[in-house]
Amino acid sequence: MAITLYELAGADPAIRFSPYCWRIRLALAHKGLAVKGVAWRFTEKSKIAFAKTERVPVLVDAGKTIVDSWRIAEYLDETYDLHPPLLGGTPAHLRFLNAWTDGVVHPAIARIVLKDIHDVLAPDDQAYFRETRERAFGMTLEQVVADRDTTGVAALRAALAPIRTVLRAQPWLGGEAHDYADYILLGSLQWARSVSRFPLLAEDDPIAEWHARGLQLFDGLLAHARRA
Amino acid sequence: MAITLYELAGADPAIRFSPYCWRIRLALAHKGLAVKGVAWRFTEKSKIAFAKTERVPVLVDAGKTIVDSWRIAEYLDETYDLHPPLLGGTPAHLRFLNAWTDGVVHPAIARIVLKDIHDVLAPDDQAYFRETRERAFGMTLEQVVADRDTTGVAALRAALAPIRTVLRAQPWLGGEAHDYADYILLGSLQWARSVSRFPLLAEDDPIAEWHARGLQLFDGLLAHARRA
Repeated sequence: MAITLYELAGADPAIRFSPYCWRIRLALAHKGLAVKGVAWRFTEKSKIAFAKTERVPVLVDAGKTIVDSWRIAEYLDETYDLHPPLLGGTPAHLRFLNAWTDGVVHPAIARIVLKDIHDVLAPDDQAYFRETRERAFGMTLEQVVADRDTTGVAALRAALAPIRTVLRAQPWLGGEAHDYADYILLGSLQWARSVSRFPLLAEDDPIAEWHARGLQLFDGLLAHARRA
Repeated sequence: MAITLYELAGADPAIRFSPYCWRIRLALAHKGLAVKGVAWRFTEKSKIAFAKTERVPVLVDAGKTIVDSWRIAEYLDETYDLHPPLLGGTPAHLRFLNAWTDGVVHPAIARIVLKDIHDVLAPDDQAYFRETRERAFGMTLEQVVADRDTTGVAALRAALAPIRTVLRAQPWLGGEAHDYADYILLGSLQWARSVSRFPLLAEDDPIAEWHARGLQLFDGLLAHARRA
C-alpha cells in the first residue's frame, strides 16, 4: 500500500505550496519511497479530521497516521532505517535549524509572497486566508507586501546570513551530502516559488547556487513542480 | 603534558571573557581533559604568533597547535574519540547554530555589553578595543550601548526566539544531554556575564532556566568564574 500525503493545494490542484509538505515530499524522495499526494485546501477541515488535526502535512502509511512535518521525518527515519537517514546522527541538533526556519525565515518570506499565496487559492480558501492572515498581521494582505521590493526582500536576505556562512564551509546544509537540513530550507523556498515569481535571492547570492542544486535533486522534483 | 589554552583576559587576568574560549573550556570539561589556561590580551599579538594567528582560542596539545574554536572542537572529537562526542553524529548539522550564534547573537550582545567589555580591559587593550570597535560600529562605544535598556535588550530577546522553541521540545540544545550545541550559546552568555551585570534574559524566560542549569555544569565551571 502506497504512502499517502495530504498536501496544501491551490485552486489548481497541481499547485502544492506548503513548505512543510515540501519538506516531506523531499524526505520521501530521499528515502526512495513512492507517495500518493492528495490535494487539500485550508477550508477542508473535515477531510483530515480523521487525523485529529487541522493542518497538513498528514501522512498515512500502513494504517498509521502521522501529523507534523518534524514528527513525520522522525517516523520515516525510525520506520525506514535501512535507507539513508534524514535527521543525521543527532536529530536533536536539527531542531534549531527547523525552529529558526519556521520562526524567522517564514515570516520574512510571508512579508513578500502573502498576497501571491492568496491569489493562487480556491475562492473559499481565499476568503478564509484573507480573514485569518489579516487578523494575524493586523493589516491587509496588500499592506503586508507593500514594501517587499525594498525592506521586505532586504530583511529576508539579511536574515539568511548564517546560511551563507555554513555554505562557505560545506556544499550542503547536511554536510558533504544533502539531507533533511537542506529539505527544511528548500521547502521554504519552494513555498515562495510555487506561488510567486518574485526573486527572493540575488543572482550572485551563494544561497542561489545551493538552491539551483537543490531544485535538481530527485530528478528535478522541485524544478518541475507546477508554479503559479 | 597538559593541554594549554590561550584565553582572552581582562586587566584582572582571572577575568576570561571570550565566548569562543568559553566554548573550548566547556568542551575540554565535557571530555574530562585538564587544561592550563594562559591569559592573553588583544595587544599581545607576538605571544600567539607561533600559532600563525592573531586571535584566541589557541590550543596546544602534545606539540600540536590548533586555532579557531570550531576547528578545536573537531580536533577534540577526533583525538579523544573514546570520550563523549562534542559535535554529535553529524557535526555538519551544528555549523548552523554556530554561525547563527556568531552572526546574530554576538552582535546583539555586543550592543548591550560593548562598553562593559572595554571597562574590564588592561589600559593598552582599552585603547586598541575602543579604536577598532568604534571604527567597526561607526560610533562611540557609549553610543552603541545607549539604548541597551530598551531596543538593545528587546532585540536580543526577540532574536533568541528559536532557542525557546527548541527548549520546549528537549531539555538541552544537544537533546537529552548537553553537548557542544549548548556550549556554543553558553559561551556567548558567559562572555556577557564575565564583563557585565546587565540581565540579558528576563527571569521568566525559559532560556534563563536552561542557563541556570548550564552554569552548574562541570562543578559550576561557569557559575564560579571570575566576573567584573
